[in-house]
Parts: sequence; structure tokens; C-alpha cells
Amino acid sequence: MQIKISELRSLIIKILSKENYSVEEAEKMADVYVFAEATGKNTQGILKLMGTEPAQNIKPKYAPKIVKETSVSVLIDGGGASGPLAAQVAVDTMISKAEEHGFAIAGSSNTFSSTGALSYYAHKIAKHNLIGIVAAGSPRAVAFHGGIEPVFGTNPIAFGFPTNEQPVVFDMATSAMTFYGLVRANALGQSIPENIAIDTQGNPTTDPAEAMSGALLPFDRSYKGSGLGLIVELLTGPLTGASYVFDNGDWGTFFMAFSPNLLGDVETFKKNASDLILKVKGAKTQPGQKIHIPGYDTLAESEKILEQDGSIEMEDSLIQKLKAL
Amino acid sequence: MQIKISELRSLIIKILSKENYSVEEAEKMADVYVFAEATGKNTQGILKLMGTEPAQNIKPKYAPKIVKETSVSVLIDGGGASGPLAAQVAVDTMISKAEEHGFAIAGSSNTFSSTGALSYYAHKIAKHNLIGIVAAGSPRAVAFHGGIEPVFGTNPIAFGFPTNEQPVVFDMATSAMTFYGLVRANALGQSIPENIAIDTQGNPTTDPAEAMSGALLPFDRSYKGSGLGLIVELLTGPLTGASYVFDNGDWGTFFMAFSPNLLGDVETFKKNASDLILKVKGAKTQPGQKIHIPGYDTLAESEKILEQDGSIEMEDSLIQKLKAL
Repeated sequence: MQIKISELRSLIIKILSKENYSVEEAEKMADVYVFAEATGKNTQGILKLMGTEPAQNIKPKYAPKIVKETSVSVLIDGGGASGPLAAQVAVDTMISKAEEHGFAIAGSSNTFSSTGALSYYAHKIAKHNLIGIVAAGSPRAVAFHGGIEPVFGTNPIAFGFPTNEQPVVFDMATSAMTFYGLVRANALGQSIPENIAIDTQGNPTTDPAEAMSGALLPFDRSYKGSGLGLIVELLTGPLTGASYVFDNGDWGTFFMAFSPNLLGDVETFKKNASDLILKVKGAKTQPGQKIHIPGYDTLAESEKILEQDGSIEMEDSLIQKLKAL
Repeated sequence: MQIKISELRSLIIKILSKENYSVEEAEKMADVYVFAEATGKNTQGILKLMGTEPAQNIKPKYAPKIVKETSVSVLIDGGGASGPLAAQVAVDTMISKAEEHGFAIAGSSNTFSSTGALSYYAHKIAKHNLIGIVAAGSPRAVAFHGGIEPVFGTNPIAFGFPTNEQPVVFDMATSAMTFYGLVRANALGQSIPENIAIDTQGNPTTDPAEAMSGALLPFDRSYKGSGLGLIVELLTGPLTGASYVFDNGDWGTFFMAFSPNLLGDVETFKKNASDLILKVKGAKTQPGQKIHIPGYDTLAESEKILEQDGSIEMEDSLIQKLKAL
């Protein structure tokens, strides 16, 4: 069924603000989930209110607070809140600082759940005419190249760049599949593709349950993917003071924003970034094929739906489930 | 044969300072090439003095100069000098600023050749107790996922992190092979591995000459590799004012450094980064296997050789060729 953005957002806010979060807090969190639904990242949307640890049931000890701050940096203690709340406080504080000083960095820690779609935060940064980098740590699920035991989380990293059109927002897990992909295949009794995961003995497996007790592989099944996973682990663990190489622990998130004005000027940057995209999209393909730029091509339409309170298509049963929460 | 670091460095300086560069400039450039040789990146070492466009023959119009500067940023106009000279001026100026302000960014443009091993610059940044990111643009050689025409350079990106031991220095091309790999295979009449490159019609090829007129594939043969190539193209082209999606043009380089002190403190960061590395290396493997962390495991030995003027093994014929330049 079609559901209006405003209706979806209201439903989510109602659920989140029932017990553990204020309406204002729930609004910040809802923005992350609604963005995910509107941009087709539906594993990062309302499913976060339905899993084994629904966001609305995570009771914070205290509201997110600043534990360290300079003119260009802020470290947020999430107070045990759900990931997106701490992340929203961190990213908003950071954007203000970056707008003033041309650069800022932020970390959030003391949260024990996913921040949701990193593309939301990278998009928000880019909409402020800043270049953004966002990375998130999570419990270990991915083996290092050559290892057979998980060490890193799926460790996504996202980048946002302003252009004269919609921003370029590129968001990728450094694992061959998201952890949710495993959970979903397991729940549905489906197998996973080959060359995605290994069992506890390091043998290739297409059984999601075996993969969950074994390990996912890095996205390129090689050392570059592991290297990028390592970068994310360093930025989100040791740098923010959160956990690293962990099962139960503190899921750190790293944010950075800087202005193209530092080296040139933002208007020229945006013009040339748009031109660069056109050149990429204009490159030759096999007959009948088109070059698809992930995190860019469909974003303009998603932005329009979000800004103009359009409607998106969602499964009836999911909406009913959401309404029943 | 074994050659002492100091002897190799002197030889390189002599060649570079013959005509187009001062001794001081040649020293800066030599450091980049010597580091590459000492760390085993020998395609980025003295071969740069021997190819079709040897570094010593690149005549700068003027010395690298600052064209834009703030307290935390610097844009270097390379004056047409060889890549490493402009890059050295950029990275040194940036490190001073980052040491004072906790963050800095730099770009270099108006250079028309490779900057050499990015790991050199990432390592230098990390040795100043800063986290570094370096990325370099180059002429188009790599197709975007789904395309059959090259759009991006091999677009390497490197990261450097201080630890209590040697830094973690991770340096990767976003292409499935370096461009030099193609040049070398072609010169030796060798074929290249499968699934690395396509010909001008987009068909898979193992012929390096066909690959050079066709295109390399992204390192993961998929959209994530292309996305990372796009990030590097945006940072090195539109951001620094250099060329993008180009054949003949200006090879931009991007540098960033920031201090772990912004969010925590550098000593705790280094301690935990070292511990993280230990945990990764301690993960289970198949019997008899070991986890290898690229850009870390052999770096301590390379640092020792560089610092204590040790010797490295190089091919006799190469040394003779170098001495004859």
C-alpha cells in the first residue's frame, strides 16, 4: 500500500515516544528511519522497531550529552540510548561547528544498537554544502582476510558530497553481505549466495545459520576489503572510545564534515562535481545498458518525496504490524 | 645486490638535481622513492626515474607555491613539477597546521605525473601522531561498474594511523590492477589475470595491450569499488581544482590529517589501536596460516632499515641502470 511520509513519520514517533523517549527525541530518530524507507534502504527503516531489540524498547540511562568538546569537535555520550538518537545529536552539533570553522569531527559512544542508515547522516552533511564521512562500528561478524573467526562488524562507511543537483551519497558495508541479510535469510529458511560467508571451521557455506556462527567475508573477499574494515574499526572504536573487536559492547560512530571552501570555493566544487557525474554517466556501456551511480540516481526522487510529503509503497503487513506496536 | 639506503638516496638525488631540480627539492622527492623501495613498493620507486616520462626530466615552470591558505588548509600549485615535489610541500605544510590546530587539509594541483607511493605520505602523517587520509587522481584507465569505457584513474587512497608500534598504513588502488601492472605485463609480453580488464568492446581480456586501450575493472569488479573510485575522483579533481575524468591533465592529490586528541587523547588511541591490531592478528585461521595486515606487518622492519641506514636487496641491473642515468 501507499503511505504518506507524514503518516509514516507520525506512526514511528508515536511508537518511539510511548515510554522511553520524548517526542522531540522520537522525531530525531524517526527522521533516520523515514529517510531509510524513502530511499529504499528498508532493512534500516521500520524493521528497527520490530526485531529482537526494537529501538523503542531501549531505555536510555540519561539523555545524550557532550563529554568532550572543542571548537571543531564533539564527543557524545549516548547515555545508552538507541543509536540514531546519539548519532543525530552528534551530527547536528558537528554540522554547526563545521559551518562556522570549515571543519568538524564528532564521535558518539555509549550506544548499544545500530545508528540506522549512514546515508541519512552523509546526506544531511552534504545538504549543508559540506563533504561528509560517516562510519559505524558493530559487533564482530566479519573475518579478516586469511582468518576464519569474525573480528570486525559489518563496518559501513558513507560519504556525502554536495553537487548542483542532489548530493552524491555513497554508503557501503565493508562485508560481503549485511548482518541483516543473514538474519533475514535465516528467518525465511533461505540459503545465501556462495562466496559470502564461512562456517566456524572456515569452510564456505551458503547456510545463513552457519554463517552467523562462523563469519562473513570482506566485500571483495580479499585484503582491500579487510583493510577498509580495519579503518572503520579504528575510527569507530579507539578514536571514539567505544568498543572494538567486540560481541557485546559499545557501538561507536564517527562523523566528519569539511567545506570545499577550505581549498577552493563550494560553488565551483558543486559545478564540477555535477559535471564529473555527467561524464561518468555518459561513458560507453554495452548496448542497452546504463551506468547506475548508487546513492545518486534515485536520490532526487527520494528527496522530492521527503520534502513534499509524497507517498511511498510499503508492504501492507508491515504497516499493519507497525500500527499494532 | 644489497644497497645501503644512504647510497640509494644519494644516487637518486644526484639524478634529480642534474638539471631541473635543486638539491633541496631532489631530497624531498628522493625520500618518497626511497620509502617505496624500502617498503617493497618497487613500482613506485626508482622505476619512476626510468619510464617514458622520468621524474628528473619534468621541468617545472616555477617552484611549488601556495595559492590558497587558511589556518587549517593549504592548496599548492605544483608549478608543473613532478608529483612528489608538490605533494611533499603540501603534506609538510599541512602537518604543521594540523599539529597546531588538530586538523588540516591540503590539495596539490598543477602536476602532471604520479605522486609516488601514497603510503609515504600517510606514514609521515601518522608519525606525527595524526590520523591521515591521502588520495591521488590520475588519467582515466578504469571503467565504472556497468560501463565499458575508462572514466577514473586507478585512484589510490591511503590511510595512516599512529599506534604504540609502527603506524598502520593502508594504501590501495581502487582498480583491480595498477596501471603500471599493465605496462609491465605488456613490456614483458605477459598476459594479465582474468577478470581484471576489458577491451574496447567491453569483452573480458587477458591481453595487457587490449586492456590499455580498453579499461581496467574496479578492484571488487562491482559497484563498491566504483563508488570508492568516485570518492577519490571528487576529492582529487573538483576539490583541489585539478582535472577529473581526463586523459591529459592535472593530477590532483588530496591530503587530510587530524589528531585523536580532538575526540579523546592520542596516547589512549595509540594503546587501543595497538590492542585492536593484536586482537585481529590473534583471530583463528586455518591450521598453519597467519593473518597478514598489509601496510603494517613488515613496516617495522622497513622503518628500521630507513632510520638506521640499513641495506635493501635490489636487482643488479636496475642499480646499474640507475647509476648510468
